[in-house]
Amino acid sequence: MKMAVIGCGLIGGSMALSWKRAGIVDEVIAFGHNPATLQKALDKGAADTVTTSMEEAVKDADIVVSAVPVEAMESVFTEMAPFLKSDAVVTDVGSTRQTVIAAARKGLGDKFHQYAPAHPIAGGEMPGVDYASADLFDEKVVISTPDEGMDPKVVTFIEEAWRKAGARVQAMSPLQHDLTFASVSHLPHVLAYALVDMIAREENAQEKLKMAGAGFRDFTRIASSSPVMWRDICLSNREALSHELERYRASLDTLQKYIDESDGKALESVFENAVRNRRGLVFPGK
Amino acid sequence: MKMAVIGCGLIGGSMALSWKRAGIVDEVIAFGHNPATLQKALDKGAADTVTTSMEEAVKDADIVVSAVPVEAMESVFTEMAPFLKSDAVVTDVGSTRQTVIAAARKGLGDKFHQYAPAHPIAGGEMPGVDYASADLFDEKVVISTPDEGMDPKVVTFIEEAWRKAGARVQAMSPLQHDLTFASVSHLPHVLAYALVDMIAREENAQEKLKMAGAGFRDFTRIASSSPVMWRDICLSNREALSHELERYRASLDTLQKYIDESDGKALESVFENAVRNRRGLVFPGK
Repeated sequence: MKMAVIGCGLIGGSMALSWKRAGIVDEVIAFGHNPATLQKALDKGAADTVTTSMEEAVKDADIVVSAVPVEAMESVFTEMAPFLKSDAVVTDVGSTRQTVIAAARKGLGDKFHQYAPAHPIAGGEMPGVDYASADLFDEKVVISTPDEGMDPKVVTFIEEAWRKAGARVQAMSPLQHDLTFASVSHLPHVLAYALVDMIAREENAQEKLKMAGAGFRDFTRIASSSPVMWRDICLSNREALSHELERYRASLDTLQKYIDESDGKALESVFENAVRNRRGLVFPGK
Repeated sequence: MKMAVIGCGLIGGSMALSWKRAGIVDEVIAFGHNPATLQKALDKGAADTVTTSMEEAVKDADIVVSAVPVEAMESVFTEMAPFLKSDAVVTDVGSTRQTVIAAARKGLGDKFHQYAPAHPIAGGEMPGVDYASADLFDEKVVISTPDEGMDPKVVTFIEEAWRKAGARVQAMSPLQHDLTFASVSHLPHVLAYALVDMIAREENAQEKLKMAGAGFRDFTRIASSSPVMWRDICLSNREALSHELERYRASLDTLQKYIDESDGKALESVFENAVRNRRGLVFPGK
């Protein structure tokens, strides 16, 4: 089978490598606008051929993956629709679901039934196909969010392919997905960016940052992630993220009060509840 | 030389192992209240003997280290003072400096000149001597904060010992220390605790937490840290931490506005500034 990867970055490139390794696809064509990026995809072995023409990318492809920032999904779906084979399957790897599914519905039009969405919970803070890897998704969770108007056979095909590629597939509604990841992914990214940005704006920023230890290193690792990708996620999942950020700000109001009043007992109780819940967590994959 | 470790947890135990390995001390006595913890210190090889008597711990010791939570420092210094040999050296490994130095000044009284403070920028989210390791401080930074009334010879002795143990020593004022670590350490801990606590209080907390990936894992690693230790740090560095938390809350007010207004350009600019500053950082040690 031939796969077209639209946007061959860290995730698109890793998916090509991983689905090739699993024997799901034997040929990959990468579509993009930047010749240097396309050359890297060839060098990395993520793509066998590359193109800047959507028609060329899509016309013979059995599987078409959109791996662009989520706000660019609609135009990508719109652009590919006329060239899709009638038996081709379309999927995406975006980090938000409601708006991406709406984008597919609009962009693919009467070909929407050829589409099934999947969000792999994997990545890395360093963007680009240079960091792509065939084992990025090994034992990681992939969220399938079937919705009205989708063909169950296409949904099953995508889910099975991800399983074969080494991931664990879990289904939930698009709404549940967006609420969950607003809490456990999108909000922490905003918080990490906000901290580094705040410190970096200080006069003695470099002296402070030089003193940072392993706690800061891990807390802010995600603040190296692609700004465009995360800008898009914030816009795409705006409502849920806004709600979570409001709740978090209220939590910080309370903590500020505890600190200013030297309320050690209240602080300890918040910290203890966090520790109790955090220590028990097991994270999939490496 | 004989070292007395008052509070033989992760840091106290690691310091005993590390200073033994470096040949700075050849005998360690651990003081504590909990016989089970003391037994673990023996089993781990961090202590050669243990005691629940401060007099016994301190009377023959050449180096006395206070490695208790920072709010307990004053009572520990007060308790040890009568038993200190006149040529013994006292140090501590607390995460805040102004209040700990004030505690030493008050608790040690006319023996304050025997004291020099040092804060190793190393640790781990899992507390206790079980997790202690001789190489915890290898190539890590140790902050020396000399202050009025300290004996430069004692300061130099502690700095040299840390260097010999494998750490990199850096000097700054106690105030500069507390302002710096309020930003790059104490605030991130509060933020990580706050996020896990907030999510854990939700009805469907466990479903959400099960979906968390590597970003959440790293962002919240420090939310497994000892609640008592971090309660004490918050109280001890209250003023600086309160100021940083206020500034951070103001940053989040702005980000909330950007998100609610779908201001992608402003969001991207904050994220980009964070990325630019975060990607360049190099962290010492393993």
